[in-house]
Amino acid sequence: MNAPRPPHVRKAWYVACWSHEVGRQPLARTLYGDPIVLFRSTSGDVGALLDRCPHRGIPLSRGEVAGDRLRCSYHGWEFDTAGTCRHIPSYLGSAEKSGRAANRFAVRERQGVVWVWATPDDEPTHEPFDFAYVDKPGYAVVREDVRANATIHAVAENALDVPHTAFLHGGLFRRPEVRNRIACEVRRWHDRVECEYIGEPRPTGLVARLISPSGGVVTHFDRFFLPSIVQVEYAIGTENHFVITAACTPCDDYDTRLYAVAALRTRFPSSIVKTVLKPFGLRIFGQDAEILAAQTATTHHFGEEVYASTDVDLLGPHILKLLLRAEHGDLGNPKEEPWTRRIEMDA
Amino acid sequence: MNAPRPPHVRKAWYVACWSHEVGRQPLARTLYGDPIVLFRSTSGDVGALLDRCPHRGIPLSRGEVAGDRLRCSYHGWEFDTAGTCRHIPSYLGSAEKSGRAANRFAVRERQGVVWVWATPDDEPTHEPFDFAYVDKPGYAVVREDVRANATIHAVAENALDVPHTAFLHGGLFRRPEVRNRIACEVRRWHDRVECEYIGEPRPTGLVARLISPSGGVVTHFDRFFLPSIVQVEYAIGTENHFVITAACTPCDDYDTRLYAVAALRTRFPSSIVKTVLKPFGLRIFGQDAEILAAQTATTHHFGEEVYASTDVDLLGPHILKLLLRAEHGDLGNPKEEPWTRRIEMDA
Amino acid sequence: MNAPRPPHVRKAWYVACWSHEVGRQPLARTLYGDPIVLFRSTSGDVGALLDRCPHRGIPLSRGEVAGDRLRCSYHGWEFDTAGTCRHIPSYLGSAEKSGRAANRFAVRERQGVVWVWATPDDEPTHEPFDFAYVDKPGYAVVREDVRANATIHAVAENALDVPHTAFLHGGLFRRPEVRNRIACEVRRWHDRVECEYIGEPRPTGLVARLISPSGGVVTHFDRFFLPSIVQVEYAIGTENHFVITAACTPCDDYDTRLYAVAALRTRFPSSIVKTVLKPFGLRIFGQDAEILAAQTATTHHFGEEVYASTDVDLLGPHILKLLLRAEHGDLGNPKEEPWTRRIEMDA
Repeated sequence: MNAPRPPHVRKAWYVACWSHEVGRQPLARTLYGDPIVLFRSTSGDVGALLDRCPHRGIPLSRGEVAGDRLRCSYHGWEFDTAGTCRHIPSYLGSAEKSGRAANRFAVRERQGVVWVWATPDDEPTHEPFDFAYVDKPGYAVVREDVRANATIHAVAENALDVPHTAFLHGGLFRRPEVRNRIACEVRRWHDRVECEYIGEPRPTGLVARLISPSGGVVTHFDRFFLPSIVQVEYAIGTENHFVITAACTPCDDYDTRLYAVAALRTRFPSSIVKTVLKPFGLRIFGQDAEILAAQTATTHHFGEEVYASTDVDLLGPHILKLLLRAEHGDLGNPKEEPWTRRIEMDA
Repeated sequence: MNAPRPPHVRKAWYVACWSHEVGRQPLARTLYGDPIVLFRSTSGDVGALLDRCPHRGIPLSRGEVAGDRLRCSYHGWEFDTAGTCRHIPSYLGSAEKSGRAANRFAVRERQGVVWVWATPDDEPTHEPFDFAYVDKPGYAVVREDVRANATIHAVAENALDVPHTAFLHGGLFRRPEVRNRIACEVRRWHDRVECEYIGEPRPTGLVARLISPSGGVVTHFDRFFLPSIVQVEYAIGTENHFVITAACTPCDDYDTRLYAVAALRTRFPSSIVKTVLKPFGLRIFGQDAEILAAQTATTHHFGEEVYASTDVDLLGPHILKLLLRAEHGDLGNPKEEPWTRRIEMDA
Repeated sequence: MNAPRPPHVRKAWYVACWSHEVGRQPLARTLYGDPIVLFRSTSGDVGALLDRCPHRGIPLSRGEVAGDRLRCSYHGWEFDTAGTCRHIPSYLGSAEKSGRAANRFAVRERQGVVWVWATPDDEPTHEPFDFAYVDKPGYAVVREDVRANATIHAVAENALDVPHTAFLHGGLFRRPEVRNRIACEVRRWHDRVECEYIGEPRPTGLVARLISPSGGVVTHFDRFFLPSIVQVEYAIGTENHFVITAACTPCDDYDTRLYAVAALRTRFPSSIVKTVLKPFGLRIFGQDAEILAAQTATTHHFGEEVYASTDVDLLGPHILKLLLRAEHGDLGNPKEEPWTRRIEMDA
């Protein structure tokens, strides 16, 4: 069966790669399934072109960077970072005709990542998302990218979902047999949704005890920003503050890469925090990626997503609603008060 | 090309597994391509549910059996053998709403096999097929399941076809150069078809000589019962009686599992008969499975089945006719006399 | 995405195999994706049948040749080189009914190759292409077949394209930095197109220096003959004459086999020429096959071919035009003067 196409939000920025990955070798990526080639010119600018030579369709990423241009390996056509064809070997006429240009994607490079605008040959209407606390003194920063065979809405729901942690990650940071009644307040704006967890005690798992031995009330927000950002913010007592933000890139409809940037402030040296957090986070994510792939396999088999939700599916349905609206260009009213709902659950 | 969809007969029982295969670990199977999970509750009952959690689509077979319930591995939703959702962790409301139930399949466990009714959430209108002679004194019973990449009608025709044995299984039990003129009487009722072979001498191959060294006229019936049972009954003289019945399960349209149950009475100790019969049968079936897979590959390539039959294709066309009728709910008239035809052939 | 179907020219001969490949074992090939079985009868004739037994669809190439007939491995049906069913084991009636015949393809065997006519059960309207100079004294002949995952029009354009040689095969026989202004005259008839390169100096690469150390003006023609023949003719001075002809067989839409026959006359012993030419040609072709597979992958991804051509794409657009015409049965006017165009380029 064909799986349904998830919402596409094209008037938006997505992370194509980390800055250090684009050099003088062409870098091949995909966005919504389409191939993109990134390269850095001698002046340091990053170009992002559709990875198909307009001449005979050969991926430009098979070619090489020559000065400020990307050269196709088949006939040697050369393109600049704007996609313009600048040279055609053997040919005595002028190379620069519009029909010979490669489709180009707008690019922004900041905070160590390269963003591309998901509509080719288009001018961006806003700037990319800003990773919070990354540039702030006192915060250690950890970066990592991971991949899941699932849609952005499945990945984002999973990343911000509390109830599954006791089962799928049983013992790692929540345990099924220890439950606390907490309040959850969901607030949905036109372009984002968040949940605040109120009265949550310090988690009881192993890692929580290592990070915050003395206990203390937890401040905890889970957030989704259209069209692709998930963010978990935790404060334990006054000393510990974690803001983990991941930009989800739809490499394909059921293939999402998460570019995660964690900003951490604790009473421990940052090197220790990084050493502990990274393998722990990757282990958690490995379990999530496996279950998400199983969810995708079901969607492919049945050709549809049929989900029965309850109140404790706090954010998933809102995320999908926002994405479906955004796909159709309905960006809502920025001046409206947020939609708000408070429920209780056992976490 | 897309291969044509073979007839589906859904108001019917199919074998899902042997009894001993369903225990406290969930067991994943497929029926007409759909995933089914089987599990045994503490009381010994077998449950069969569609292998998709109604919550987020995760296969329930990834979960675990907890008491009388099957628990999903993602969020811990729990289902009983009737498919009812009995518990949702974290959630403070009542779990048991119909929209949260898993689709369930009626189950019968008897004679060492587990049957499921191929329409979910449906009440069976009759009971499963009874394996003949299995419970009768003096009969040794051999069970084995094998798999073929072919439709039920191709598998059933092959299992009951005489002419191919001299070629495909040349030398194993019939030889092309030794031919006997025999009479074949085909009788088709509303729900089954059989062929009686009249005047067939003892086969001349190796195994036949071992089983019946003294010779004797053979009584031989081949039978198909709607929608999935093939049966070969042989008697050689008065001492030897073999009834081999196989229930064909459409795991998918072109993937059929045969649950074969052989009831055997001979003058040899049953342990010797089993030891000889099983490897011989598996070798024969291996050749059949290979040719059936080639037949399926042709059907996929050309997107259709185009078959030229002759009189000596005794049962295949009748099997397909019965299946096509049954698919459309036309069960014929049980009171009518059977359709009968007698032909001669060289076997 | 589905790649577009390239033009099919069915009223035409294609090479199925080299003569020495058809013996007493059935040989399986494909043409436009359809399976064909070739076999040689005791009288030496070659039969070519659709590789599907009319009885139950089993590939006849799984069977064996018995005398003048091909026998199916499932039930032993036997077919002669005309496709007529001549024997059905077990069956007491007459085998030879038209509904039991296998589809057959007309065959010609000459110059060491076996040609089949691409429309089954059809009478050819003309004879196959004649390989030039192959039978002429003084010429060494080298034969080789290679395969590319690409359409005939992509393969033919590539084989006859000059500008890519400096890039894709950089250093092997042309170098990007050494350019000569030459004239190219393209002539298109109703059934073929050629380009003559005028004023081309001796190539400067390694192999060219070996073959023609004393230099001399080059005569060079590239030719395409409908629907599948590419030919490169080179003369260097008066002593060296190379005619390399390849018959392209559409095994499938994006899988083309080239049966190349090179006729060579030089001042060197033919054994030396063969020893040098073959590995060089195979190395060149390996680079071409890799770039053609990349071109095909792009076509599959985007579901279309979008090509921007310039004047120096001398033959490709004409080849596609001739194929599209021929597919629709428009064979043009053989009496018309050729369409002619002269351009200059740097080669």
